[in-house]
Amino acid sequence: MGVVVEDVPRVESATIEGLGRYGVATIHEAQGRTGLMASSLRPVFSGARVAGSALTVSVPPGDNWMIHVAAEQCRDGDIMVVAPTSPCDDGYFGDLLATLLRARGAQALVIDAGVRDVADLTAMKFPVWSKCISAQGTVKESIGSVNTSIVCAGELVNAGDVVIADDDGVVVVRRQEASAVLAAAAAREAKEAGIREKYARGELGLDLNNMRPRLAEKGLKYVHKPAADCTPEASKRTN
Amino acid sequence: MGVVVEDVPRVESATIEGLGRYGVATIHEAQGRTGLMASSLRPVFSGARVAGSALTVSVPPGDNWMIHVAAEQCRDGDIMVVAPTSPCDDGYFGDLLATLLRARGAQALVIDAGVRDVADLTAMKFPVWSKCISAQGTVKESIGSVNTSIVCAGELVNAGDVVIADDDGVVVVRRQEASAVLAAAAAREAKEAGIREKYARGELGLDLNNMRPRLAEKGLKYVHKPAADCTPEASKRTN
Amino acid sequence: MGVVVEDVPRVESATIEGLGRYGVATIHEAQGRTGLMASSLRPVFSGARVAGSALTVSVPPGDNWMIHVAAEQCRDGDIMVVAPTSPCDDGYFGDLLATLLRARGAQALVIDAGVRDVADLTAMKFPVWSKCISAQGTVKESIGSVNTSIVCAGELVNAGDVVIADDDGVVVVRRQEASAVLAAAAAREAKEAGIREKYARGELGLDLNNMRPRLAEKGLKYVHKPAADCTPEASKRTN
Amino acid sequence: MGVVVEDVPRVESATIEGLGRYGVATIHEAQGRTGLMASSLRPVFSGARVAGSALTVSVPPGDNWMIHVAAEQCRDGDIMVVAPTSPCDDGYFGDLLATLLRARGAQALVIDAGVRDVADLTAMKFPVWSKCISAQGTVKESIGSVNTSIVCAGELVNAGDVVIADDDGVVVVRRQEASAVLAAAAAREAKEAGIREKYARGELGLDLNNMRPRLAEKGLKYVHKPAADCTPEASKRTN
Amino acid sequence: MGVVVEDVPRVESATIEGLGRYGVATIHEAQGRTGLMASSLRPVFSGARVAGSALTVSVPPGDNWMIHVAAEQCRDGDIMVVAPTSPCDDGYFGDLLATLLRARGAQALVIDAGVRDVADLTAMKFPVWSKCISAQGTVKESIGSVNTSIVCAGELVNAGDVVIADDDGVVVVRRQEASAVLAAAAAREAKEAGIREKYARGELGLDLNNMRPRLAEKGLKYVHKPAADCTPEASKRTN
Amino acid sequence: MGVVVEDVPRVESATIEGLGRYGVATIHEAQGRTGLMASSLRPVFSGARVAGSALTVSVPPGDNWMIHVAAEQCRDGDIMVVAPTSPCDDGYFGDLLATLLRARGAQALVIDAGVRDVADLTAMKFPVWSKCISAQGTVKESIGSVNTSIVCAGELVNAGDVVIADDDGVVVVRRQEASAVLAAAAAREAKEAGIREKYARGELGLDLNNMRPRLAEKGLKYVHKPAADCTPEASKRTN
Repeated sequence: MGVVVEDVPRVESATIEGLGRYGVATIHEAQGRTGLMASSLRPVFSGARVAGSALTVSVPPGDNWMIHVAAEQCRDGDIMVVAPTSPCDDGYFGDLLATLLRARGAQALVIDAGVRDVADLTAMKFPVWSKCISAQGTVKESIGSVNTSIVCAGELVNAGDVVIADDDGVVVVRRQEASAVLAAAAAREAKEAGIREKYARGELGLDLNNMRPRLAEKGLKYVHKPAADCTPEASKRTN
Repeated sequence: MGVVVEDVPRVESATIEGLGRYGVATIHEAQGRTGLMASSLRPVFSGARVAGSALTVSVPPGDNWMIHVAAEQCRDGDIMVVAPTSPCDDGYFGDLLATLLRARGAQALVIDAGVRDVADLTAMKFPVWSKCISAQGTVKESIGSVNTSIVCAGELVNAGDVVIADDDGVVVVRRQEASAVLAAAAAREAKEAGIREKYARGELGLDLNNMRPRLAEKGLKYVHKPAADCTPEASKRTN
Repeated sequence: MGVVVEDVPRVESATIEGLGRYGVATIHEAQGRTGLMASSLRPVFSGARVAGSALTVSVPPGDNWMIHVAAEQCRDGDIMVVAPTSPCDDGYFGDLLATLLRARGAQALVIDAGVRDVADLTAMKFPVWSKCISAQGTVKESIGSVNTSIVCAGELVNAGDVVIADDDGVVVVRRQEASAVLAAAAAREAKEAGIREKYARGELGLDLNNMRPRLAEKGLKYVHKPAADCTPEASKRTN
Repeated sequence: MGVVVEDVPRVESATIEGLGRYGVATIHEAQGRTGLMASSLRPVFSGARVAGSALTVSVPPGDNWMIHVAAEQCRDGDIMVVAPTSPCDDGYFGDLLATLLRARGAQALVIDAGVRDVADLTAMKFPVWSKCISAQGTVKESIGSVNTSIVCAGELVNAGDVVIADDDGVVVVRRQEASAVLAAAAAREAKEAGIREKYARGELGLDLNNMRPRLAEKGLKYVHKPAADCTPEASKRTN
Repeated sequence: MGVVVEDVPRVESATIEGLGRYGVATIHEAQGRTGLMASSLRPVFSGARVAGSALTVSVPPGDNWMIHVAAEQCRDGDIMVVAPTSPCDDGYFGDLLATLLRARGAQALVIDAGVRDVADLTAMKFPVWSKCISAQGTVKESIGSVNTSIVCAGELVNAGDVVIADDDGVVVVRRQEASAVLAAAAAREAKEAGIREKYARGELGLDLNNMRPRLAEKGLKYVHKPAADCTPEASKRTN
Repeated sequence: MGVVVEDVPRVESATIEGLGRYGVATIHEAQGRTGLMASSLRPVFSGARVAGSALTVSVPPGDNWMIHVAAEQCRDGDIMVVAPTSPCDDGYFGDLLATLLRARGAQALVIDAGVRDVADLTAMKFPVWSKCISAQGTVKESIGSVNTSIVCAGELVNAGDVVIADDDGVVVVRRQEASAVLAAAAAREAKEAGIREKYARGELGLDLNNMRPRLAEKGLKYVHKPAADCTPEASKRTN
């Protein structure tokens, strides 16, 4: 309700950088399959991976005034995370605001709404994950909040949580759990490297993980005679 | 491609009537959780339950000519099942066609597209399950097929399969499996009656099904101290 | 841009009442299958049918201020038609505004957004067609326009056009075409009555409309031997 | 991760009952337009209004095992709130579980997924708000959590928060704020009663709230000559 | 209803070219935030920007016959704008029609439906904005209209209006307003250049636009103590 | 229900390679406009075209165990086709499984659900068509079936059918019809080459196909005087 929280505690930068070495899928697994935003959020351009401290912004539908308020709160490396209070496709953010955010130290934007000037954002290499692309402008009439806890794309985000984003989507790591998740991600990646090597040689997960007895117990049966094929003819159009 | 298959074999009526005594959820469970059409199909009015032999119709988008062709193929108790060859919301069917189908013996319609005249359909008590309601009219320019195998709302339907529909949706039973499914449904319903009685007395599924050891094995833990509550303030709008 | 057009010409009430005797599907057909709003608009309660002069309102997303401005422009029997300038689900309208609109003569609301207090709207029998139901409140900060031409649910509406709405949806008739459409609707209904009677006796559209030669010309073939049935077993779940 | 929190603190019942006297829209406004779940949640049958203490359940997609675990944690008047960890339409809940929940004291269910046996749920008058209706069954293979904080339909819910649901949707009130919100709702309802009376006499919000000067300041203009009407002819279909 | 309007007046090419120097977002702002098509329209390949005179085409669902009729009406630099009379995903347009349109002078396509052969369209560098990509073919059985006013992706388009499209979407400028919008766009771009420079130096919109007093008046508060963080544990999956 | 069919008959590789020379749109047309999966399936990276024998996999929602089972059944050049038994967005497949499938001979994946590690999949050039991109992990608790007939994205697929996929989507050719469809595709491509040449010279489809008489018969009229333009002013936003 019209609150800007200043000087939010952040995770130390070495930990954030460490998390940024792992992709979203690895981090998500490493923390017990939690923290993933909805798959409706997509990168404006592919190939970017970022990790940073969340600067949260709650905005009214069709009103981007609070992004200006939040710009002042940026610290180096922050990722701005914006959620409207009801579903909205408007283009809250474009190349002007990207210029401002970058000048103030923010490295990326995650927004559960629309953005515009995407050719410019791509040329600037300012990474953005958004729900859609829309040139529809917004007003500056109503206030919201900065650095309070929000729900963005179905996921709770506190100010100062760590956000990691790449081509697979966006994941949130609680501030208090960042170090533990970093360690778990490193362990997972090491384990996966070993599996990748075995898979590349054609070894089966069925054997590596001794899945066959449990599959049999569940009732899985192998047969050799296929059922008669289905050849529905109905859907052919004639004109 | 422009084929009408006549004199399709149907399941005997006693079996169909038997299946009609069970709801869609029971039938779906009784045949191993298969055969359910997508939940996007909804009844035009609530409270109906029907079971009948499927009279399948493949139609082009925005063209209802084949429903006239199919009307001639109706036998008593049939349920017409209509799928467009690409997604379409148009209103293929209204009170005139319902009058015709009823006169020719059909008892209901399932359509992965739109219908109209829904006040009349409701007054006539002609049951319809459809993807949407739309007054948008269709043309009669292109042909399709009748009584060939189709995919309707994600589910394969052969002519002569049994279709059961109620407020929970629409399920398909293969013609060859109708008797077996009927027996399985009866067994399931009997079993559920016993469970319902125990649940009504407050007995837990945890105990009735001896779930506790397996839950413990999976790692479920009971704790008494709740985590600190979350009280995000961000989303309050101020105007 | 911030314009209220006053004293818009309206169709004479006898014509509007005449149109109200026909359903949306009939009117839509009578004017050459035009004027239908998207099927995403649904009535808050079923069974209502209204016809009235359109009082158009263009509103910003999440801002219902202009509905207050428009309330002053209501004439007896008007139907308020509201479209946001970008997609919005918020609840722009509830029982208070319905009380106001009714007191000022308006008989119904059509809105390509959300409404709330639907239990009260139903009890009041104030007919509403909306995109969704949402308790989310709106602000009063930005202006829009009243009685200018708008696009609502994909359809152009001019102030003073006639709007007809029922359980099938919402259709718009141009002010200048209202008399002609009324005549065409009457003719269509008369024709349909004859067809309904024949269909009720089981006569086929195939014969009444002499469709068989044209179907044969398109290549429709009748066969007696069905293809082998399809019996996919794959989708059964095992637990 | 597999945690059941027991003996969660609840709001005292007089406060919950008090909140239940107000509708979702009023509560939502009274707490600053916060707490509303997404409008995709709809009641299975209309006309119910409930208020109760939230018993939260986090479930895997397609797996309803934790509902059995949660049933044991019910206290009189609780409302079970269920959210899957990724989007799922399956029918997690039907008449058997409703029988069990009612026997254990729970009065309603809110679920961001599907339910089934809706004819039975309606006959039992067990209120349910769900994302969809689907007969698709679920398994009992993976665990989740009970009475931890979850995000349901876009809104954070802590165990012991108060949930109010009616035909307008579902709103959450933080446990710590329940008394304050109750007072604010009562104040709002009183104020609205006065407005309703004035609106019913035809008094305008424009005058009651002295909106005219501010509208003029925003640039709103009244004109008498409408623009030429638009009469697009394109969309008429010819067949 | 089956009308082709020939020799539609067009805006002079210098004005169209001038508009093409500005992006969709700028044009949309310059004309008072109007004219934007829905964000569901996306470019088949990124990086194109076009401006041209709209050649409008109204088509039935699943029928692309009128695109052939419209091809004859192309003038150099025209942009064909196609809208189906009810929602349709079919692939109305591919490399053959692109070859034809280019040979007849058209420079781009905007269609609220599907297109196909997108690898070829990309290789040809023929710009297309569409609702989806689908190989589903269409028929040539029913007529529509050319160069009448249509609604495309929620926006009214008259023949001869100017259409500008880029990676942000598609915007329509009324023919009569093209010169005025061009002047406004130039003014806006000049103003934005100055702002961009200041933002790049880290100057805040808060200060440049003197927003602080108005934010304070709205009740915005700055605080230093964050609320307790939320750490919901519920959504972790365990297997 | 827990069945793995081994040694499914496949189309000979020369035929499959032949089909792979034609795009999805051509194959779809060549077999009478049938076999196309829904347009919701999109390639993870653009520019790939594959043709192969379908290895079908039916999976529970949120459970990718059967992909491991299916990996063992791969033959050189196979395309794995995966469909969940109810709608699911989870990321069933990433770079580890792609490494395994490639080592076992499979050349591509088609899945009516989500995938992850898309930067790696792109770098590996392992082609995938999926419904969405999601890092959400899956479990290994419930079984499904391999090489039984499934419905994937609205289309029936039998094990051993030929699947062709490119930037336009995914099409299925029945095993028994593969040779005939190959011949028809070649014929169609040859015919299109001639048309393309004529279109490139600006010859109209209206003349090449002698469409003018039939259009006139349908009632198409050419007029020279446009209707008055529409200039709705309503949607301009003022702030």
